[in-house]
Amino acid sequence: MDRIPILQMGEFLLVTIQVDMHDQLALLLQDDLTSKIEKSGARGVLIDISALEMVDSFIGRLIANISAMSRILDAETVLVGMQPAVAITLVELGLSLTGVKTALNVERGMKYLQAARTDSLRENGGPDAEAAHGVAH
Amino acid sequence: MDRIPILQMGEFLLVTIQVDMHDQLALLLQDDLTSKIEKSGARGVLIDISALEMVDSFIGRLIANISAMSRILDAETVLVGMQPAVAITLVELGLSLTGVKTALNVERGMKYLQAARTDSLRENGGPDAEAAHGVAH
Repeated sequence: MDRIPILQMGEFLLVTIQVDMHDQLALLLQDDLTSKIEKSGARGVLIDISALEMVDSFIGRLIANISAMSRILDAETVLVGMQPAVAITLVELGLSLTGVKTALNVERGMKYLQAARTDSLRENGGPDAEAAHGVAH
Repeated sequence: MDRIPILQMGEFLLVTIQVDMHDQLALLLQDDLTSKIEKSGARGVLIDISALEMVDSFIGRLIANISAMSRILDAETVLVGMQPAVAITLVELGLSLTGVKTALNVERGMKYLQAARTDSLRENGGPDAEAAHGVAH
């Protein structure tokens, strides 16, 4: 397997990590994901790690990096599906994934992203107001 | 990696196949998927194979099996994300995946499942009529 698929679901992208990550694959995922965000105009990224039975500092850093990159491209990242044992290990190792939003499963993660998107539209006066603003100036 | 994750998205389940399949993993996926359909009451299964660069007769049979099992449990299966090269090879090999519904990507597959679900509800007179029917008899 040479790359991790990125699935588009409406305004959001879904990445399911199933295989053991190595440097090359991690770099490729960052490349693929950032270009996919740019091409699709996605507003959120869901990273599912329900298949992982272990999250080490390498994966932790990868997730933090992806989250930071997506944020710059105006897409929010939510980490979903973490196994209980993984959460225990992370805390014991002192890896607290600061700055990364988590949700129990894909459904809740997507609901969170949708709610966040609705809030941001309301704050900006909705998509119509945004478009009108663009025309006026 | 010892099992393929099954993600629930509303009434549908999403399975992303990324790793090379072997007998043990295929059996485990069939087991997991059928019990997940039973537990969740899912009405559709999306199998994403966008990460696969090759689909042999083993994977073909696995998909046909999953599709048949899901149908018995009243869930429709849609195969999504097939790479063009895979489609070419399948036809050249004479593996036509008969009886398996396909869609270009997850979004279209999900739209298809939602439309099929709405149609079946309408034919049965909607969920309310279904419930009333259940009470009457």
